[in-house]
Amino acid sequence: MLLDNIKKPNDIKRMDPTLHKDLAQEIRDFLIEKISETGGHLGSNLGAVELTMALHLSLNLPEDKIVWDVGHQSYTHKLLTGRREGFDTLRKFGGMAGFPKRKESACDAFDTGHSSTSVSAGLGLAKARDILNGKNTIVSVIGDGALTGGMAFEALNNAARLKSNFIIVLNDNNMSISENVGGVSKYLQSIRTADNYIDFKKSMEKTLLKMPKGGNIVDMLKKYKSSFKQIFVPGMLFENMGITYLGPVDGHDIEAMTRMFKEAKKIDHAVMVHVITQKGRGFEPAIRHPARFHGTDPFDISTGLPKKPRTKSNYTDVFATVMNKLAARDDKIVAITAAMPDGTGLKRFRNIYPDRFFDVGIAEEHAVTFAAGMAAGGLKPVVAIYSSFLQRAYDQIIHDVCIQDLPVIFAIDRAGIVGSDGETHQGIFDLSFLSSVPNMHVMAPKNKWELSDMMKFAAEFGHPIAIRYPRGLAYDGLKDYRQPIELGKSECIYEESQIALFALGSMVKTAEEVREALKEKGFNCSLYNARFAKPIDEEKIKEIARKHSLVVTLEENVYSGGLGEQARAVLDGADAPASLMTVTLPDAYVEHGNVELLKKEVGIDTETIVNRILEYMED
Amino acid sequence: MLLDNIKKPNDIKRMDPTLHKDLAQEIRDFLIEKISETGGHLGSNLGAVELTMALHLSLNLPEDKIVWDVGHQSYTHKLLTGRREGFDTLRKFGGMAGFPKRKESACDAFDTGHSSTSVSAGLGLAKARDILNGKNTIVSVIGDGALTGGMAFEALNNAARLKSNFIIVLNDNNMSISENVGGVSKYLQSIRTADNYIDFKKSMEKTLLKMPKGGNIVDMLKKYKSSFKQIFVPGMLFENMGITYLGPVDGHDIEAMTRMFKEAKKIDHAVMVHVITQKGRGFEPAIRHPARFHGTDPFDISTGLPKKPRTKSNYTDVFATVMNKLAARDDKIVAITAAMPDGTGLKRFRNIYPDRFFDVGIAEEHAVTFAAGMAAGGLKPVVAIYSSFLQRAYDQIIHDVCIQDLPVIFAIDRAGIVGSDGETHQGIFDLSFLSSVPNMHVMAPKNKWELSDMMKFAAEFGHPIAIRYPRGLAYDGLKDYRQPIELGKSECIYEESQIALFALGSMVKTAEEVREALKEKGFNCSLYNARFAKPIDEEKIKEIARKHSLVVTLEENVYSGGLGEQARAVLDGADAPASLMTVTLPDAYVEHGNVELLKKEVGIDTETIVNRILEYMED
Repeated sequence: MLLDNIKKPNDIKRMDPTLHKDLAQEIRDFLIEKISETGGHLGSNLGAVELTMALHLSLNLPEDKIVWDVGHQSYTHKLLTGRREGFDTLRKFGGMAGFPKRKESACDAFDTGHSSTSVSAGLGLAKARDILNGKNTIVSVIGDGALTGGMAFEALNNAARLKSNFIIVLNDNNMSISENVGGVSKYLQSIRTADNYIDFKKSMEKTLLKMPKGGNIVDMLKKYKSSFKQIFVPGMLFENMGITYLGPVDGHDIEAMTRMFKEAKKIDHAVMVHVITQKGRGFEPAIRHPARFHGTDPFDISTGLPKKPRTKSNYTDVFATVMNKLAARDDKIVAITAAMPDGTGLKRFRNIYPDRFFDVGIAEEHAVTFAAGMAAGGLKPVVAIYSSFLQRAYDQIIHDVCIQDLPVIFAIDRAGIVGSDGETHQGIFDLSFLSSVPNMHVMAPKNKWELSDMMKFAAEFGHPIAIRYPRGLAYDGLKDYRQPIELGKSECIYEESQIALFALGSMVKTAEEVREALKEKGFNCSLYNARFAKPIDEEKIKEIARKHSLVVTLEENVYSGGLGEQARAVLDGADAPASLMTVTLPDAYVEHGNVELLKKEVGIDTETIVNRILEYMED
Repeated sequence: MLLDNIKKPNDIKRMDPTLHKDLAQEIRDFLIEKISETGGHLGSNLGAVELTMALHLSLNLPEDKIVWDVGHQSYTHKLLTGRREGFDTLRKFGGMAGFPKRKESACDAFDTGHSSTSVSAGLGLAKARDILNGKNTIVSVIGDGALTGGMAFEALNNAARLKSNFIIVLNDNNMSISENVGGVSKYLQSIRTADNYIDFKKSMEKTLLKMPKGGNIVDMLKKYKSSFKQIFVPGMLFENMGITYLGPVDGHDIEAMTRMFKEAKKIDHAVMVHVITQKGRGFEPAIRHPARFHGTDPFDISTGLPKKPRTKSNYTDVFATVMNKLAARDDKIVAITAAMPDGTGLKRFRNIYPDRFFDVGIAEEHAVTFAAGMAAGGLKPVVAIYSSFLQRAYDQIIHDVCIQDLPVIFAIDRAGIVGSDGETHQGIFDLSFLSSVPNMHVMAPKNKWELSDMMKFAAEFGHPIAIRYPRGLAYDGLKDYRQPIELGKSECIYEESQIALFALGSMVKTAEEVREALKEKGFNCSLYNARFAKPIDEEKIKEIARKHSLVVTLEENVYSGGLGEQARAVLDGADAPASLMTVTLPDAYVEHGNVELLKKEVGIDTETIVNRILEYMED
C-alpha cells in the first residue's frame, strides 16, 4: 500500500507524482472504511483529499501552518502527518480527536470546531510571523458555508490590509452542512459557472482586433484597468475588498492546485485561491445525502445505511413534532435555524411552512437579532441553535432580545455533554450565560412529553425564554408525571424525607437511578424536577432543605452560574438544616468520547453520585 | 422659529420645501446648543440632519419603520417626532435616552446601542410585515463603520434573498468613531471618488457611436449584461451579493435623497441607498476632531473645549501608560482594539508602535480570534475592548482563546455602570460570563497603581486573563497598599473583627467609605481587596467568615455568576459562623444617567450599603 510509505509529515513529497492519484484513492478507501466503523465526519473529508495532498506537497510542515476552518475536513491532514493509527480510536475517549488539536500534533496549527474562525486565526499567525521575523507560509482553509459567518467577513476585511503573504483557500463545495444560502452563495455559483466570462473575454478580444479603431478601446480599457478587470476576473467580490483572487481551480486536480499554490505564495499580500470540490467525492451515498453523511454514525459501506438503526425518537424529533403542531394552531409561529435544518429537526417544518421557515446560514448573531426584529414586528419566532453555537449570539440575546423583553423562544439542542465532537461542541455553559441575563427565562425538560409541554408554555409566554435539551434519545420514563408548567416552579415526583434530589432536565433520569440505588442501601429519597434554571424555585429549595438532611442538585452544566451555585446561594442563611451537595460539570473542558464514559469521567454518572451521597450519609 | 411647527411625527411634511434648508440649520443650531450643555453624541447627529429629514419626508411614521444602527445618530429623528423638550434631560436619569427606545416613542422601531444590528432587525421587521400582510416600508440606516461588523454582512447575505421591498441606507461618512479601516472601507472610498467611472461610461459611449462596428460591441455588452454592469455601476460589491445599489447621493441634499428614496421604494427586493455624509457637518471643531466629538461632555460652543477640563487621570490613561512601558521592555506585546483607539487609550501606543498596533474595526469576534492566532504564533496580545462590547466575543473567548489556554490579555474598560449611554452600554455582565469559562482568570484593580501592577502580572502570566476597570477617574487613594499580585489571592487592607468588607475593583473605594461611616456608628470593619473574581480567594473568605460576624461582598456586576454568588457558594457548609451579605447589581437593566445617581438607584452607593449593614447589625 502507498499509505505504508506515509509515516510522518512531508513523506508525501518523496512519492512519485504519478502515484498521487492512487494515493488519493487509498486515502478515500481508508477513510470510508474507518469512518464506517467509528463514525465521524465523512462528506467534508472525502471532498478535501486532493486539496490536502496538494497543500502538503506545497508546504513544509510543521514550519508552515494550515488552519482548518471548523476542522471536520482535517482527516487526510491527520493521515499525512503520521496519525494513521489514530483512526482506530477516532473520536473515542482518550483517542484521536475529530478536529485539529495542537496538543495532538505540531502540524495542527490552531484548534477549531466552530465555523468561520480560520481567517482570523491565520491572520494572527501571519502577523506573529512578520513581527517575529519568520518566513513561513500561513494558509487558512475555509469552506463556502463558513464564509456566511460574519466573523469570516470581518477577517477578510482586515486581511485586505496585510502587507505580506497570507493564503486563504476557499474550499467551495456549494454546501454548508446542508444546502448553502444567501447572496454570497449565489455569487459563488455564478463564478463556478463562469464559462460565459471566458467566452466573453475571447469574443471581445476577437471583435476588437477585427475592428478599425479597436485599439482605441483597448487603450481606454487599459487606462481604466480596475474597471476593465471587472469583466474578466471572477472573484471581484474579493478583489473589491482588496484580496487577490486566483481561480477557480478543480479541487480534485492535484497538479493544477499545486501550480496555483505556487503562484499564491509569490503574492505579497492576502490572496484567495478558489478551489471547487465535491462533498462526499468517491462515495455515492455521501454525495446523494450530504447532510446525513456530514457527521455520521457507523454505517454499512455497501448500503450506506446506519449499522444500528434508530428505533426510539430523540429530543430533536420531539421538538420537530411540537413545532409543527404549534405552527398549525398559531400563524405567528416562525422558525429560524443557522445552517441546521436537519440537525435541529426543522426540515419537516420547512416543507410544511416554507414561508415561515428561515435558514440564515452559519450566522448565529444574525439569526438572533433577525428573530428579535420579527418579534418586534408581531411574530413569535423560535430560534433553534445548538448550545455551543448559541455562545456566538450572547450579546444579541442581551442587546436585541432581552433588553426589549421580546418574545423570542430559544430551542437549545445539544445542551450538556454531546460526546464525540468534544471540547468545542459540549453544551455546558448555556445555563450560566443565559441565567445572568435579565428578562431571560430558562427551562429544561425531564422527558419527551415535558419538552412538548414546555414549548407550548413558551409559545404563550410573551417574554424571552429558552428550553435546553440534550443530544440523543428522548427519555420516555415518568410518563405519568405531567403537572402543568408554571413559571419558576419545580415539580415534585417522589416525596420522602431523608435525601432530596433536585434535578434539572436530563439529570432527572439520572436522579431516578440514584434514588433506586440509594433505596437499596436503605436510604429514602425525594425527587424534584427543577424545570427552571431561571428563575429557580427558591421557595421549594428552602422548603426541602428544611424537610431533609441533604439536598443534592443535579445538572449538566458548569458550576459557575449554574443551578447548583444558585441553589447554594438560596440556601445560605436560609435557616434550613440540610447540607447541599451540587452535582455539576467541573471547571474544565470535556474532551471527546462516548457520552456515558464522559459522564463517568467528570463525575455526573449514577455510580459516582451514589457513592458521593453514601460517603456523606455514612460520615 | 420653524422648529416651533414641528410638534409631532409627519409635521415636517406640511412645511414649504423651500424652508427645508433653514429648518436643517435650525436643527443643527439646536443640537449644538443642547449637546454643549448636556453632552452627548454630536458628530454623528450633525452628519445625519438632512438624511433624517429626507427619510421623514419620504415615510409615514410610525407605520413605516426606521431602524437606526447604533442609534447615536437618532437625535434629529427624536426632534422630528415631537421630543424637542426631551433634549433638556438628554441622557439624564429619568430623562430622554441618547438611543432609540421603543418605550419612548412609537416612532422608535427597534432599540439599538451596539453596532451592526440594524440590517438583521430591519429584515426581521420586513419578514414580519410580509407574513402579517402589512404594506409598510422598512428602512435600516447603517453607517460605513458599522458595516465592518460581521453580523451586518450576515444580514446583507440574507437580505439578498428577500422577495419584497427593504431599504438599507448606507450612511457613509468614512468614519467609525475614529478613522475607518479595512478592505470595505477602501472599496467605499473608491466609489466616493467615482468620477472616473462616469467619465469612462461617457467616453466609451462616445467612442462606440463613432465607430463603424461599434454596434457589435454594444450588442455583445448587452448580451453579457451582468458583466457589462460591472463597468458602469459603482456598488458592485453589493450587487454581486444580490442587493440593488443606488447612489452615491449627497447626504446633505434633501431633494436628491427624497428622489432616490422614491426610487428605492419601487424595488421589490432589498435595495441599498448609498448616502455620503460629513460627520460633524456645520460645526468646525467636530469636523476637525471627530473622535472627541463622537460622544462629548458639555463643551464651550465658541472654542469647542470641554466646560470642565479633566485634571486627574482616568483608568484609560493608566492603561495607556502601562501598555507603553510593557511594550518597551517586551517585544512580544501587541495591542488590538475594535475601532476604539481613542476610547481605550491605545492612540499613543499606535503612534509609538505602529507595527504592533491593530485596529480591526468594529469586529470584536475577529479581534479576539485574531489575538488567539497571534498568541499561538508566539506573541502576547492585549485585547482592549469595552465590557459590553466584549459580550460579542463570548464564544471566541471560549473556543479560540481558553480551550487552547492561550496567553491573551483582555483589558476591559467601561466595566460596571457607565452612566449616560444607558442599558446597552453598562458593563455589568463580564464577571459572570468570564467566570464560567474554564482556563480564564479575572481581576479588577482597586486603584490606579494596581491596574498597572495587574497588567504587569498579566504580561508574565502565560494564560488567558482579563482585567476589568471602570469608566472615569482612576482612584488614587490607598497608595501605600501595594502587596505583590498573587494568583487568586486577595489583599488585606484593614484587619478588625466585627464586619468584613470583601470588595472587588471600584467597590474597594466604596467599601472604604462604608467602613468610615460604620466606624462613626461604633462598628469596626475589616477591609479586603478581592483582586480576583476568578479564581476567588476561597481560603480567605472562609477565614474571615470565621473571624467576623458579618461578611459583605461588594461588586459592580449582576448577582448571577458574580463575586457574591461565588462567595455564598464558598461559605455554604463552610462551618463559619458569619452571615454573608452581597452587594451587587439587580437582575435588571440599568438605565442611563449620572453614575452616582444610578449607583444610588440600584443600591450600591455608600449610604444604602451602610444602612443595609446597620439594619442587619442592629437587628
